Order: sequence, then C-alpha cells, then structure tokens
Amino acid sequence: MANDTHLTAPTLFIQANAVRYAYRRFGSQSGTPLVFLQHFRGGLDNWDPHITDGLAQGRPVILFNNAGVASSSGETPQTIDEMSDHVAAFLDALGLRPVDVLGFSIGGYVAQSLVLRHPRLVRRLVLVGTGPRNGEPSDDPRIFEVATNPVPTLDDFLFLFFSPSPASQAAGKAFWERRHQRKDADPPSSPQTMKAQIAALTEWRQPRGERYADLKEIQQPTLVVNGINDIMVPTINSFTLAQHIPNAQLIVYPDSGHGAHFQYPRLFVTHTELFLDN
Amino acid sequence: MANDTHLTAPTLFIQANAVRYAYRRFGSQSGTPLVFLQHFRGGLDNWDPHITDGLAQGRPVILFNNAGVASSSGETPQTIDEMSDHVAAFLDALGLRPVDVLGFSIGGYVAQSLVLRHPRLVRRLVLVGTGPRNGEPSDDPRIFEVATNPVPTLDDFLFLFFSPSPASQAAGKAFWERRHQRKDADPPSSPQTMKAQIAALTEWRQPRGERYADLKEIQQPTLVVNGINDIMVPTINSFTLAQHIPNAQLIVYPDSGHGAHFQYPRLFVTHTELFLDN
Repeated sequence: MANDTHLTAPTLFIQANAVRYAYRRFGSQSGTPLVFLQHFRGGLDNWDPHITDGLAQGRPVILFNNAGVASSSGETPQTIDEMSDHVAAFLDALGLRPVDVLGFSIGGYVAQSLVLRHPRLVRRLVLVGTGPRNGEPSDDPRIFEVATNPVPTLDDFLFLFFSPSPASQAAGKAFWERRHQRKDADPPSSPQTMKAQIAALTEWRQPRGERYADLKEIQQPTLVVNGINDIMVPTINSFTLAQHIPNAQLIVYPDSGHGAHFQYPRLFVTHTELFLDN
Repeated sequence: MANDTHLTAPTLFIQANAVRYAYRRFGSQSGTPLVFLQHFRGGLDNWDPHITDGLAQGRPVILFNNAGVASSSGETPQTIDEMSDHVAAFLDALGLRPVDVLGFSIGGYVAQSLVLRHPRLVRRLVLVGTGPRNGEPSDDPRIFEVATNPVPTLDDFLFLFFSPSPASQAAGKAFWERRHQRKDADPPSSPQTMKAQIAALTEWRQPRGERYADLKEIQQPTLVVNGINDIMVPTINSFTLAQHIPNAQLIVYPDSGHGAHFQYPRLFVTHTELFLDN
C-alpha cells in the first residue's frame, strides 16, 4: 500500500448501508487522511495523478466513489445531503475520523454538507471549483448541454474545465493525457447517476433559510480554490465562500476555469500542503 | 549591507529630479530586487520586519519613500501617475531594472501606474490591500476621519488595518510591537504629504476611459493579496484586479482586513516567495 500510486493502487470495496463503496488508498501511512470527493459524473480516475500523488507524499490519500457512482454499487441519491450521509457511512465503515476532505464541484457541495451534518468527521476542508447553496448560477445554456453529453469528449472537457487561451487549452490536453494513463479504468457513471446528480444540483440551487447563513456554521479551517474564469460554477461563488466561512483562505489562479487545479497541479499541491500542514 | 536587516539597514539617499529620495536596502546580494511602495502617510518603518527580512532571504529588498514622504525631500505630487514617475526616476538613479514591486494600498495604485507608464522597469508585481482606478469605494465615513488623525494611534491602526475579532486585534498589536523596534525611526510624513495623497486618492477614484480597461494592459505576472474584510479598500477590488489583469493570482486571508499580510506574515512571505521565485 505504501508503494502504491495513483496509477497502481487497487480499487478496494467496503460495505455499509447496503452499498459497496469503491475507493482507492495510497500514499503516506501517517498523517490525517485526505478524502477526495469527485465532480459531476466523475469516478476514481478523474483526478490528476500530479495532485493525488503529490499530496500523498505527506498523508494517506483516499479516492472515493459515492453511492451508485462508477464502480460503487447502489443508487445515487437525489440530494447533496444524502450524498454526504453516504460519505459519513463510508468513513465510519473504514473507522476513519477525523479526515481532511477535498471536494471538487458537486463534490465541494457534498463536502460542505458533510461538515455541517457530520462536523466531527472532518478536520480541514479544501473546496475546489465550487460554491454555496443557492449561489450564483452559470448563465450559459450551452454548459448544461455539453456537460450531459452521453460520452464526454476531450473537446467537451477543454470547453468546460479550461479557459479558451492556448496556454490553458494546452494544460487541459496535458491533464487529459495524465488522467488516461491507468490501464484498469474505473467504469463510467450510469445514466441513473447523472440524472440523480442533476436533481441534487437543482435542489442545491434552492434557498434554505437565510442566504449563506449555513456557511457561518462551518468551524473547520477551509481552503477555497478556483480559476478566475470558471464557467461551470462562476468564480464569484468562491469569493462568497471565503466571505462567509469564518476561517477560509481563498486562492484564485489566472487564465483558468473550473479545472484550474489541473492546470497548475504543482502550485496547487504546494498551496494545499501549506494549508493542510500548518 | 549583506548583514543588514530591517532594524539595522541605514537610511540612504539618492538624488534625482531635484529630490533626495530616502531608501534602505538589505538582504541577499543577488536576485531581482523587490521594491516596497508604502501605504497612505507611511514611511520606511511602516513595514513588517517579518515580511521584509523574510523576503530579503532570497533577494535584495529596497524600502522607498516617494517624493516628500517622511525622510525624502521634495513635494508629494497630487496624482498617482506623478508618484509612479518618481519611482521610475529613483530606479533609474540607482541603475536598477527590472525590479519586482510590492505596492500596498496607495502604494499598489502607484505600482499599477508604474507598470503601465514604465513597463520595462518591472518584472513582477505584488498588489496588497489595493484596487483598480475607479474601483468600489469604502462606504464608512468614519474611515476617512480616523485615517487622517494628526497622530495615528494604535487604536486607529487596529480599526483600520485589522478585523474586530480577538485574534486579528492581537495580531495587530503584535505587529505594532514589531514595527516600533527600530531606534532611529523615520520621521512622520508632513501635512503636505497627507493633503497631496488625499488629492491623488481622489483623482484615482475618477474613471479614465472604459472601466478596468487599463488592467488588461498589465503584462507582468501579478500576485494580488488582501484580507477578506478590508474596510479601507474593499476586498471586492482585489477580485476585480484578478479578473482583469491577464496573469494575476489572487490570495485572500481569513478574518482579516487591510493589514492581512501583517496578520499572517510568515504565510504571506511563503506565498510571495512561491510567486516571485517560480
């Protein structure tokens, strides 16, 4: 296990709540584990090996498929809160607490719900390319259309996750290469997962009490990261997270979008290590 | 010189444009010099030794009094552009180019004007607690009143530069101690300087062409830093800088204000080193 990497760590399974959760664990044996919560439709292979292996130098890294997602069994629920309860069940089954949590996009919504519903499970929070409940929506209808293509293509991905500049597009292609190196790939998520995640995203857009009041309840030190031009979850939502979470540091990268951390993986790892380890 | 520090570096003078500019230089002999441009009314002693000595490990650090400010001779001009021309004259007189520039507050306005008017003088830019021309103004009239007190007190400073939380106020007091350690203090700035700087701040609030269009001309890699609750130059202005400067990284610290870098000096040094040295 200690010698495993992003490319070699076997997919493991653990049963809880009648779900067989798929996960991978690699990196340092000691330190607070860092649990990765993935974006819309994504599975275990949708992370950047530069990031997961980089952060695994200093702590155990755990990649996780929520209920129904990719190689996990079960049905994907239709609310973010139910998704975070699955994360809690998974952590309980592994006997892990507290952990650090890195949530990307919808995974960042799940991470927020997790610290609010299960605060004792989480030590620190990293929120990437994400936003608060009832945040500012994206205003380009083409985004939903592209994001729900039956088989996501490289072009779809470059449009959704990177800025139009040559430098950002080149970084996107380099990431795409890195993320397809693994031979025994995690299967794609089912149409059921996509449909349920869309329902959960829709529910997350609704207000619940005073706008952003939930965020003030988050006690965990939080790092918020995004690209300056995120067209999926507009970047102003990252600013809002930093304004309302009591102990949140915000880092925004230039000439980049939703996948800014894939564009600047080394810098992202260094910034995240500085945050997690101090 | 190599063994000098923030507390021991002598105040030096160099003549140009009929002004005798006061400055101090210390730190590493090699590397791109980092020139510090100070806030409203501030002089050579208003920086944090943790920051200047920290950054001086990897490069020469140059603290600078603009024309008329504190121990510099001459008259303080009434526009930001004239102030940046003085910086250019000072750098020319020292024969330094390119330099890195760290501008704080009004010093950040001068830094922006400098890279636009004298682009070849500057390699990289650090903009702290600042904003663009015609940015979003502060809306609390008490701020102007306190900021223009004839003799700035600790209480004034804690109100203007730090958040009201106990942690931020304690950090402000610790900084205040650090910054008063030097025996041969720089004299306070004159009423003429304050009056001229107010005129320059007023002029900077006026539009000049399309809002924020100037920022797109800045070619230098830029690091933008602020606290999440800056009441002097509202933090949204830092977001605006990052949106419009083509290659700008934004870092915002939690539970802090205009003086966030004085509250988190070690983290600020590390983040700035990462930016300047990579």
